[in-house]
Amino acid sequence: MTVLDPAPVPSATAHPRLSLNQATIKHAPLTEALDVSVAAGYSSIGLWREPVAEVGLARAVELVADSGLRVSSLCRGGFFTVPEGALRRAAIDENRRAIDETAALGAPALVLVAGGLPEGSRDLIGARQRVQDALGELSAHAAQAGVQLAIEPLHPMYASDRAVVSTLGLALDLAAPFAPETVGVVVDTFHVWWDPEVLPQIARAGAERRIASYQVCDWATPLPADALLARHHVGDGVIDFAVLTEAVVAAGYTGDIEVEIFNEAVWGSDPAAVASRVASSFAEHVAPHL
Amino acid sequence: MTVLDPAPVPSATAHPRLSLNQATIKHAPLTEALDVSVAAGYSSIGLWREPVAEVGLARAVELVADSGLRVSSLCRGGFFTVPEGALRRAAIDENRRAIDETAALGAPALVLVAGGLPEGSRDLIGARQRVQDALGELSAHAAQAGVQLAIEPLHPMYASDRAVVSTLGLALDLAAPFAPETVGVVVDTFHVWWDPEVLPQIARAGAERRIASYQVCDWATPLPADALLARHHVGDGVIDFAVLTEAVVAAGYTGDIEVEIFNEAVWGSDPAAVASRVASSFAEHVAPHL
Repeated sequence: MTVLDPAPVPSATAHPRLSLNQATIKHAPLTEALDVSVAAGYSSIGLWREPVAEVGLARAVELVADSGLRVSSLCRGGFFTVPEGALRRAAIDENRRAIDETAALGAPALVLVAGGLPEGSRDLIGARQRVQDALGELSAHAAQAGVQLAIEPLHPMYASDRAVVSTLGLALDLAAPFAPETVGVVVDTFHVWWDPEVLPQIARAGAERRIASYQVCDWATPLPADALLARHHVGDGVIDFAVLTEAVVAAGYTGDIEVEIFNEAVWGSDPAAVASRVASSFAEHVAPHL
Repeated sequence: MTVLDPAPVPSATAHPRLSLNQATIKHAPLTEALDVSVAAGYSSIGLWREPVAEVGLARAVELVADSGLRVSSLCRGGFFTVPEGALRRAAIDENRRAIDETAALGAPALVLVAGGLPEGSRDLIGARQRVQDALGELSAHAAQAGVQLAIEPLHPMYASDRAVVSTLGLALDLAAPFAPETVGVVVDTFHVWWDPEVLPQIARAGAERRIASYQVCDWATPLPADALLARHHVGDGVIDFAVLTEAVVAAGYTGDIEVEIFNEAVWGSDPAAVASRVASSFAEHVAPHL
């Protein structure tokens, strides 16, 4: 390189609807996550509560404003399947704080992971009912804050220890008693791709105006030893992003689309390289269907 | 012990509807599996094709007759998601042989595991259609042999590499074009416990007279490194056997109930001890609901 070489140009300009979910570059603190996203040409980012808390909410709000990025969602609330008692009260209070943080950050939606079966319990039906009850407790606060609670159905392999909401259909049933601007659902390809009912349920979610977030990443087997880290870059697995993306588009969703990957190898890579790779695989596998 | 001690008495008498699926004592050859089952007081066993083939079908038929045991099912056919061509023809032929073996062994049903996505394919809808097509090719042969093809929905975590039939509802949809005595479904607690639709779909399966087999084992987390070996003894996990068993009973199923466990620790145990343990946990967790 000589001194006459031009200044480096960003190698990727991310799709205008693509949002980098911060969990994809898990080890980057908030400032780095914002910088990496801006440098890679993103206009949106999905934040997590823990890295926001590291800098403090007020500072996080400033940093986000300075970055010029939209916040597509905040992860995450939920974990409210425990029976009535001090733990449940603490979980509800924590969710109220999470709603307030979502509003402060200007994110439209708070992603909710329902929680698994309580220790020693086999009462799946009861646990699902307690998710319904928690939404009832939180909906007024969310409505007042202008935040949409976004129920994320998780893959059934997480039903016992992470989320008793296992299908988009169940998430929509749980959301049904509430106004769509207050309680919606997340469509995450990793969690729903296998579901024989996924296409009609995406259409239903659209008709009910409840798609709060569309998240994309890929499924591949064999599963890793830790099944929680089984998410892959778009295009590295078996998910048909054409079919699912076209269904979400047909359902009327026009918001940001997050790429959220939990994967040790991805987490071990340079965050800037990951952001660039995410943008290019999105451009190849998702953007053509928007 | 003196010479005056009485002959040993079997320590367990298994429930009359309990069947030991041979995969639970995977390393026991057929003769030992039969002996162990008889000694533990079983009156039924679920067989696999491979150990039958080891002794030869004719000899296996004799051994089973000598044992006095019923054969509750034969595992397994299926694996017919590949596109048309030599591999698919071979799979269909293999299934015809499996049907004949099922009839020869006097088992009412051949358990079908659909197969995963073909290598390099993302066409889940097409793979499911090929399962439907294969049933169409095999149904006449099955009807003639008096064998019920039993579609087993597998847990969605196996959708890509093992079985594209992920819910009881889909299995029933695939079975719908055929007579119920020719094409039925397996209800396996491990695979379906998480499904928000499992109770109405069990009721539907009963109304359509399609429950070919009820199989029980338990789900526990964390999953092992090999997710295929995640099955546990009844009672060692989170499944509510009361709810599911009562639903199967209410659906009118009166056949044998298999315990099928894929688990390295169980496979490493003495087969006689496993058979005894299976009988006692069944007596505790399943039998009270029959």
